[in-house]
Amino acid sequence: MAAAMGVPRSFRRVLKGRTCDALVSFLGPWRFLSTTFKASDLQIELNKHPKPKPDPGNLIFGKYFTDHMLTVEWSREKGWGKPHIKPFQNLSLHPASSALHYSVEVFEGMKAFRGPDKRIWLFRPMLNMERMIRSSQRFCLPAFNKSELLECIRQLIRIDQDWVPHSDAASLYIRPIFIGTEPSLGVARSSRALLFVILGPVGPYFATGSFNPISLLADPRFVRAWIGGVGESKAGGNYGPTIYVQDEAAQKGCQQVLWLYGDDHQITEVGTMNIFVFWKDQKGDLELITPPLNGIILPGVTRQSLLDLARKWGEFKVSEKAITMAELIKALEENRVKEMFGSGTACVVCPVNKILYQDKNYHIPTMENGPEIAKRFLKELTDIQYGRVASDWAQLV
Amino acid sequence: MAAAMGVPRSFRRVLKGRTCDALVSFLGPWRFLSTTFKASDLQIELNKHPKPKPDPGNLIFGKYFTDHMLTVEWSREKGWGKPHIKPFQNLSLHPASSALHYSVEVFEGMKAFRGPDKRIWLFRPMLNMERMIRSSQRFCLPAFNKSELLECIRQLIRIDQDWVPHSDAASLYIRPIFIGTEPSLGVARSSRALLFVILGPVGPYFATGSFNPISLLADPRFVRAWIGGVGESKAGGNYGPTIYVQDEAAQKGCQQVLWLYGDDHQITEVGTMNIFVFWKDQKGDLELITPPLNGIILPGVTRQSLLDLARKWGEFKVSEKAITMAELIKALEENRVKEMFGSGTACVVCPVNKILYQDKNYHIPTMENGPEIAKRFLKELTDIQYGRVASDWAQLV
Repeated sequence: MAAAMGVPRSFRRVLKGRTCDALVSFLGPWRFLSTTFKASDLQIELNKHPKPKPDPGNLIFGKYFTDHMLTVEWSREKGWGKPHIKPFQNLSLHPASSALHYSVEVFEGMKAFRGPDKRIWLFRPMLNMERMIRSSQRFCLPAFNKSELLECIRQLIRIDQDWVPHSDAASLYIRPIFIGTEPSLGVARSSRALLFVILGPVGPYFATGSFNPISLLADPRFVRAWIGGVGESKAGGNYGPTIYVQDEAAQKGCQQVLWLYGDDHQITEVGTMNIFVFWKDQKGDLELITPPLNGIILPGVTRQSLLDLARKWGEFKVSEKAITMAELIKALEENRVKEMFGSGTACVVCPVNKILYQDKNYHIPTMENGPEIAKRFLKELTDIQYGRVASDWAQLV
Repeated sequence: MAAAMGVPRSFRRVLKGRTCDALVSFLGPWRFLSTTFKASDLQIELNKHPKPKPDPGNLIFGKYFTDHMLTVEWSREKGWGKPHIKPFQNLSLHPASSALHYSVEVFEGMKAFRGPDKRIWLFRPMLNMERMIRSSQRFCLPAFNKSELLECIRQLIRIDQDWVPHSDAASLYIRPIFIGTEPSLGVARSSRALLFVILGPVGPYFATGSFNPISLLADPRFVRAWIGGVGESKAGGNYGPTIYVQDEAAQKGCQQVLWLYGDDHQITEVGTMNIFVFWKDQKGDLELITPPLNGIILPGVTRQSLLDLARKWGEFKVSEKAITMAELIKALEENRVKEMFGSGTACVVCPVNKILYQDKNYHIPTMENGPEIAKRFLKELTDIQYGRVASDWAQLV
């Protein structure tokens, strides 16, 4: 985009090709302003001191990292630089960097899975790339070609392929992150930025085949996101404030936070996951509900996949709509609630068995009901993720 | 606090003194868990390659930094380390640092001023220290003794004292910042953190003695902060999302954003400043209004100082209460609005002459009215800040 600013349409068309080096050269400084980095430009420096790999049976989420990382720099003057794969190492950042002072930072979370035939799979990775572009736009970070980033990530995983656990109870977590590195303190669009990707093996959220239901604190004094804010972006600023509330939940014997919104206490998300309720509606029809993407809900890839699967099954009503605590409590009193669960990259689905709300504990009969739907989602999705069942949602690395 | 955990009250009382080294030694590992760093422990490494100083008449906010910086590390295992003053340099950060991924980052903004007698003054610095402690608590970062941080900052300024402009139209901007450096990806309380302070000379927001009024975009589609969130913390996450909206304002010919809140479009803040309206109320009494500290308003030091000054003057009503766009527009139509201005460390007071709201431009007659009150605030505050008038609000470095 930067390269095309002020350039006539015919020129722009030519610029997209690779047959016009002379013309590009003629355009002088513009030729440096890449509108994306390219996987074909990858500069690779291998780590000469690979680390020992942790015991795959004892992985703590986010504590272990592989031997390499991907970095790509951007600046307003030069556009995108070449992508680099290099030994995992500390970042050298200017102390005024806009990521540190003003939270100019967006990220993604995805996984690579080792199939029974040893091949490595990604799950709907383009949805993550698209969300990362949207988050970047909201934080005034530059665009890039999402296929090029995905191809760079593929190459990074190939180099660290021995780190993808040989287990259907573990996987390789992938963390792309894009930060502003503007070295000045004005609150303004960053003129420099750094996109990087780190990887690490992670264990199962649950022991295979079993669910550990979680209890939730629903306290309307704490609000995660709001209409007019950035709750739908995967931005660092949406997470830091939740740590304090998570501690509040722990002090009250709850494992996660159920985030409420509005005077009517709509349920919105749980911890860092989307939330689903499977119930009988007032007419007695089975219905799967999750809050709609109204700006305060993170558009989760797992959320979308559960909706897609349920609609394909076509066995019950599937709704994206608001649900309030009052509606949930009424349904609990009328024994209409079947299951309640969070959805996310970490656990696929995470059953809920208790909500502490206004000093009262509400039991959710998720486990008593199987949980039939949650287990079915877990099985169908993990079968696809680990390449046990063919699907165009799974893509080879 | 960490050191005192599980220690009987009598022990704790003793631990506060300095006469019990033997006892502290007896307590074994606890002695390493400092509850604060101390200025008396400062480790100083001077910069052997000082930079040339920029022309004080041509300073861009936040672009220039002095020769030294202050850093203090904290970890859960070791508590606070010794504070270091060292050459201004890049930070080396683990790529999983919680500041980068989850916006565990809080900061302050303050200034040092060069008086006519060449001495250097700070303005109500303890208010900044106290706010930084409050912001840190909200982001689960550890406490420290605010007097010790202030003394470290004083020593940093003394070392870089030649950087404090010899001008009553410029000053030295001080940016204390405290970031989570937890090197893992779980969204949880950081087990490591880094507090650092950088300094840089900044010019006047306005040419001395004159005001340039600004125009504001008031667009209810964008909301800065919300009840139940962290709008009252000086946290990075409150700033990143505003850059996009600031760009929207610029595209519509406005210089700053007037942040609205709620269905009744309450005015809350302007840009990165607090907002004041000086008007005749419905009864015809003169009144200075700024929104109350209800959780969505940054508790500005300049805001507090304007309120304190106005209450000392005792010449008109001074109110901290909500004011809606409808009330403001009604008052404009009835010619009751005298002045409207932002308040902040950067400019002290910043007059407003136009608001673009729901596709309509509203002229604010701030400049036509002097602006009498805004100018008086500016003069009284800068007289104190530059040490031209004695006040206990000004403290020598």
